[in-house]
This record gives sequence, structure tokens and C-alpha cells, in this order.
Amino acid sequence: MDLLKKRILQDGKYFDGGILKVDSFINHQMDPILMSAIGEEFAERFANSGANKIITIEASGIAPAIMTGYFMKLPVVFAKKKSPKTMENMIVTTVRSFTKNREYEVIISKEFLQPGDRVLFIDDFLAFGNAGLGIIDLINKAGAEIVGMGFVIEKAFQSGREKLEGSCGNIHSLAVVESLSSNKIVFK
Amino acid sequence: MDLLKKRILQDGKYFDGGILKVDSFINHQMDPILMSAIGEEFAERFANSGANKIITIEASGIAPAIMTGYFMKLPVVFAKKKSPKTMENMIVTTVRSFTKNREYEVIISKEFLQPGDRVLFIDDFLAFGNAGLGIIDLINKAGAEIVGMGFVIEKAFQSGREKLEGSCGNIHSLAVVESLSSNKIVFK
Repeated sequence: MDLLKKRILQDGKYFDGGILKVDSFINHQMDPILMSAIGEEFAERFANSGANKIITIEASGIAPAIMTGYFMKLPVVFAKKKSPKTMENMIVTTVRSFTKNREYEVIISKEFLQPGDRVLFIDDFLAFGNAGLGIIDLINKAGAEIVGMGFVIEKAFQSGREKLEGSCGNIHSLAVVESLSSNKIVFK
Repeated sequence: MDLLKKRILQDGKYFDGGILKVDSFINHQMDPILMSAIGEEFAERFANSGANKIITIEASGIAPAIMTGYFMKLPVVFAKKKSPKTMENMIVTTVRSFTKNREYEVIISKEFLQPGDRVLFIDDFLAFGNAGLGIIDLINKAGAEIVGMGFVIEKAFQSGREKLEGSCGNIHSLAVVESLSSNKIVFK
């Protein structure tokens, strides 16, 4: 997706150690016009996925997911990182965050992830693939099915895709970063 | 906003003690078509606010905020409830959550909230007004200005509006609930 790659080149900041900061347009400050274009692109790529529902994880997956849901006319559920006092009948999994170097629980209500659901997972980043594995675990526990995974940005050098391919044959990333250092970013 | 009130009557669940659950279309599972209509309605109501930026708080404020930003063509910043390892130069405030009965920190990068910014705050609920007060505190600390506050649902019986009116004269809620009990909801 050229619009996105151009924007990463223009406004992204990158550092040695594989760090890519896109917090001026993706995951702290967000550009809604770009997000809408991202949603439209995902909708096109997953048009034949058969998904009946989109799932993401709070917080930075919500904007691309809601825009994708808008174009696909599908409900969007965001999995939560903490269990709200008022939620019952939850499905729970544990995700290891590499950036934050800790584990956290991800939960979703059984009411919104049911046997037979065909799920499209949308998130901002594919890095080590741990969030994606967590969602696949939730989907398996629910007796639902994963039919697609869409990521705004993939860091190909962190091998998340290999971890997910065994469970999902339909993975799309809109900008795939092959390598980056403090003064250079290379797209695939 | 009739579409929203109808949906609350149809799919909302309400209980004694002022609890209103809208997690099948607003804050766990989300209806993107409804969210888009909400964004369009906010854009109309705040068209003359002079806002140059929208701010919300993760996680359930993000969907209505990004849709509003789309229609107003404004950037959207979501304040975070925890400080990411990679963020520097933050402005911090403390918010008391009534539902969760605890305090939490809300932060925003100085890079995205600057002196002179004219901020429209968008959130899913106005109840006791504590999140709104926190955002006003962040805005004051940044030397920016609040020019409008928009809430998808206001629980008028929890007096949040009174707390915010001293700082902001331009508050809009799309569905104002005057009272609710386990078998009845009354809109203003």
C-alpha cells in the first residue's frame, strides 16, 4: 500500500534494534483519513475471506479494525487487556509482550465469540506474532475459526508471520518492513 | 440522536444501580455503521467549535473519536492509561474510576498536545465526569484549550455534566439517559 509506505518514510522514526515509531499517525496520534484508506484496503484484500466478524486487541488495533468493519459491514469486537468488573463468561488467554517484556491477559466475552464464527483479525503491528497467537488461542477455545489476519505494518525480520502461518493461510500486511536501522528503512 | 436511542432500547441492558450495558454495539462489540453515524453527528454539532485536534481516552473512546476525526478531517490522539516504555516527554494526570473503584494514570505525549491546540474531547460515556476532568487537566498543563466535549451516552443522574461545565461551555451528548432501573430507561 503505497500511501502507507510513503507516510512511514515521511513521518516514521526508526532506530537500531528494530524499533519503528509511528505514533504521529498510527498508534498515539492517528490520521483518520489514512485509517479509512487502510480499512478500505483490508476490505478489498479480505473480500472473499467469508468472515462474519472482525476481532482486534485494544488499544491501537481499534482504529484500523473499525474502519475495516465499516467497509466490510461487519461487527468489530476488541479483546480487552484487563478483565472489567462487569464482564462474565469470558474466554481468556495469555500474551507475552516483547516490547513491554511482560505477560498480560487478553479476554473476550463468550457472547461475542461463538462456535461457528469466522473471524478476521486486524491489528496495527505484526512483529513477533504473540498477540496473533493469543487471538488464535481465544478463537480455538471458542470453537470459532480464523479466516484471515491483517496487519497495518509487518516487521518481517521479527518472524511473527512464521508463527502464525501454521494456523492461518490468509495473512496480509499493508507495509512489510524487511530491515531497519537508525538511518535506513527497507520495504519488501 | 434517534438512531442511537432506538439501538439502546433494542440492545442495551440496564440494571438497578445506574448500570447500562451497551457492550454488544458500543464498547466491546462495536457496530461500525452506527459509529460512523455517531462521528457524522458529532462533526455536525462541533462544526463551528474551531477545534484543530480530537482527543479521546483508550480504549472505548477510540471508535467514536476516529469516526468524528474522519468527518472533521482532524487528527485524533488517544490518551493512554499506562505509560509505554518508549514514550518520553509525557503529560500525566490521575483519573478516579467509579466503576472500577480505583485511580489510574492517563498520559499523553507533549508532542501531540501543545500550547495553542484547540481540543475537542470525544468519549463513549459521561457519567461522573472524572475522565473529562482528567483530560481538562492534561489540556491545562499543556497550555492548550478545550473547545468542546462530546459523549455518545450521558447518564444525567450521575452529575458529570455539572463538573465539566465550569471548564467547557460546549458539551454535547447524543443520548442523555435521565433515569434507569432494571426494567425501564428514560431519555431526556
